[in-house]
Amino acid sequence: METAKKEAKPTVDELLAKAKKPAQLSPPMHKFYEGKMQVIPKCAIRSVDDFAIWYTPGVAAPCKIIQADPDKSFELTNRWNYVAVVSDGTRVLGLGDIGPEAALPVMEGKALIFKYLGGVDAFPICLRTKDPDEIVRICKAIEPSFGGINLEDIEKPKCFHILENAREQLNIPVWHDDQQGTATVILAGLINAFKIVGKKPRESIITLIGSGAANIRTAYVLMKWGVKPGNIILADSKGVVYKDRKDITKEDDPWKYDVTQKTNGEGRTGDISEAFKGVDAVVAASKPGPNTIKKEWIKTMAQNSIIFACANPIPEIWPWDAEEAGARIVATGRSDFPNQVNNSLGFPGIFRGVLDVKAKTITDDMCISAAQELASFAEERGINEKDILPRMDEWEVFPREAVACALKSIEQGVARVKLSRDELYERASAIIQNARQSTELLMKHGLIKPPPSEDILLR
Amino acid sequence: METAKKEAKPTVDELLAKAKKPAQLSPPMHKFYEGKMQVIPKCAIRSVDDFAIWYTPGVAAPCKIIQADPDKSFELTNRWNYVAVVSDGTRVLGLGDIGPEAALPVMEGKALIFKYLGGVDAFPICLRTKDPDEIVRICKAIEPSFGGINLEDIEKPKCFHILENAREQLNIPVWHDDQQGTATVILAGLINAFKIVGKKPRESIITLIGSGAANIRTAYVLMKWGVKPGNIILADSKGVVYKDRKDITKEDDPWKYDVTQKTNGEGRTGDISEAFKGVDAVVAASKPGPNTIKKEWIKTMAQNSIIFACANPIPEIWPWDAEEAGARIVATGRSDFPNQVNNSLGFPGIFRGVLDVKAKTITDDMCISAAQELASFAEERGINEKDILPRMDEWEVFPREAVACALKSIEQGVARVKLSRDELYERASAIIQNARQSTELLMKHGLIKPPPSEDILLR
Repeated sequence: METAKKEAKPTVDELLAKAKKPAQLSPPMHKFYEGKMQVIPKCAIRSVDDFAIWYTPGVAAPCKIIQADPDKSFELTNRWNYVAVVSDGTRVLGLGDIGPEAALPVMEGKALIFKYLGGVDAFPICLRTKDPDEIVRICKAIEPSFGGINLEDIEKPKCFHILENAREQLNIPVWHDDQQGTATVILAGLINAFKIVGKKPRESIITLIGSGAANIRTAYVLMKWGVKPGNIILADSKGVVYKDRKDITKEDDPWKYDVTQKTNGEGRTGDISEAFKGVDAVVAASKPGPNTIKKEWIKTMAQNSIIFACANPIPEIWPWDAEEAGARIVATGRSDFPNQVNNSLGFPGIFRGVLDVKAKTITDDMCISAAQELASFAEERGINEKDILPRMDEWEVFPREAVACALKSIEQGVARVKLSRDELYERASAIIQNARQSTELLMKHGLIKPPPSEDILLR
Repeated sequence: METAKKEAKPTVDELLAKAKKPAQLSPPMHKFYEGKMQVIPKCAIRSVDDFAIWYTPGVAAPCKIIQADPDKSFELTNRWNYVAVVSDGTRVLGLGDIGPEAALPVMEGKALIFKYLGGVDAFPICLRTKDPDEIVRICKAIEPSFGGINLEDIEKPKCFHILENAREQLNIPVWHDDQQGTATVILAGLINAFKIVGKKPRESIITLIGSGAANIRTAYVLMKWGVKPGNIILADSKGVVYKDRKDITKEDDPWKYDVTQKTNGEGRTGDISEAFKGVDAVVAASKPGPNTIKKEWIKTMAQNSIIFACANPIPEIWPWDAEEAGARIVATGRSDFPNQVNNSLGFPGIFRGVLDVKAKTITDDMCISAAQELASFAEERGINEKDILPRMDEWEVFPREAVACALKSIEQGVARVKLSRDELYERASAIIQNARQSTELLMKHGLIKPPPSEDILLR
């Protein structure tokens, strides 16, 4: 965060060294703590006598109430706040198909951020099956324990199939963060970026580089939000995507095919450089750089151009190169550059909101409301070229986002309970603050040990 | 606990009123806390910058280590301490098939006791499927996230099928608490009861009233422990169980059938009263009393007889009636009578032990070691007719039990890691104390709210 304000350009070597640091510290830190999450009581235990209330024989009474009305499970258990983080480990980070055990550190990390930023009790469920229908079946089978399901790091195109089917079959929100979460935060960033450059985003031309789950969903969300479909240009590793590209078939990937049919109204063709010519914004979610996007391509963009280079750990182009080539606003996925486009700005607040109203689903409209609130929050405290989005340490953004999302879900008739704006804000704030304070208290009293020094960790 | 020492006999009305209290308080308490368990960090979060270590980009490094060796998931994530509490809600408490949502309060309660007494991070997984093979398949699919699986409240005989198949197919311990847990604690109680009455249990005749999952497994565990199979007499609602009973078939219930073939060496027949004649101990896990077992039956037992009347909430016979009829030792499932036979004495310590050595299974021998340690613990601090077992608030029993169980699993070659007795004891004690202290700290600082008064709760 500090370096975000520093103008002196670090060397590439310094940046790479800095980028490597978390990877060096991560294994010994994981080993030291033997994992990241735990399951503990949230109710009072005055003595073991209370077990007669929380367990047998007393517990039979709430069981009978839920038997008569299963929705009471959202009131008498923590179901309303449990989210399953489900992965088959087939597309974990940039690592590919590494298997369910190897996916577990990511899913536990996700649960950590869910709790710390959103007050959500998320639990990692890594599955030893790659069959999409089996994954849907398991989500349906475990539904009675959960208030929501977060699909994570599942390869495409089956991730679309799973999301679509699970959303149809389940009565709790199912969300694929790599799609909807990313699209939400990208939209929030674009809203503010366009404000700064003074263009109307709905009239502008927006190019999406990379046709993974994130950008395919971003295309849908942008269209839903109001961008003219013909003004969106998608590009993949083979170049610009257009209607007649024979390698993109309905059978292989119906979702990408569908986007192909709706976008690129002018029928642009050619290699990736063609996707830059005269466009107002480029959102890249493709492969790590730094030379995936070239300076000369950016030079061909419209005036006041916007670049989101989201690949991790190295963006598709270094921010200073993009700026030198004429980009006015540059965002990346990294926390040590200005304008971090980070999923963690989305899912904790969005789930806080949908869980607080016990919503049955998360619509794209709810994602758009969340994105607009993210953008508004930043705008209210001031935005500029180097600061278009809220940061993760601005915790108040999450209850704000939760409220926006919850109100939209009430409006759309998918909420089980209706609360007022004030009630929603107070509830979300209290839950999130409880999560942060609980963690801090356990640390302060040594029940979560302090970490060893870096010297010891790296020994 | 206090009443356990009081000799004045309460009236039946007083007892029934007392028995109803937890059921009255339970719904409003569940509603007040909106559930019982939460998922929170166990690692330090100094600032959001630490997310780069716990989540992207740093987390890729532990993922890669696990990809190369999946067993490292037991070291670099909390998998080693995660237990799934799995139920399909088909036989919940005495309530029958109430469905997966209605089972959730029980599974959350189980998770609460797992943590508070055993330091185990258990998570409730209630399944919307009743198909035994599908349940096994789901257990296998979710295995990569867990160090163990606790099956709970699944109807018989499919619970035996599920347990057997899941144990075969999974490389983590699978346990059905209604079977193995109950059998462990019953064995512990019998060991000390026989010590007090001065009989050799392995030579004695032991009757089991009720042929549910608990008593079927108890029969197996008693045989494994050394009781002569022919000296065990099983009785069900139709009377004494013997080899030629035509209503007990291999097809319907192979496990009950198998027990039927091995036990009742003298070929006893007749109604339930026949099962009492001349026997040394009766273990009833049948239907709530108080008149399921009659005084006149107990009068026909051998001298110095032992009665475990385990039905809840009302034991098969009131303890004073059993005593008047000549029983020397009477145990029940209730905390307000002496000698509570309570599963909560078993599973938290047993799982603590198997998780600490990352065991691949829980054998019946490990259950027997745990039972012997439970008995020894009580014997060391003194036992008598009214105090044959440890109580739940004697927390030191759980690390003791964990050590006994872990050492046996090392001896039997099913442990992934080997620790010394001292290392095991220190580790188990530290984990259990951390769980208790964390809960207490959150209560003390109001992050777990104090409960409302009974007046307010019952209003």
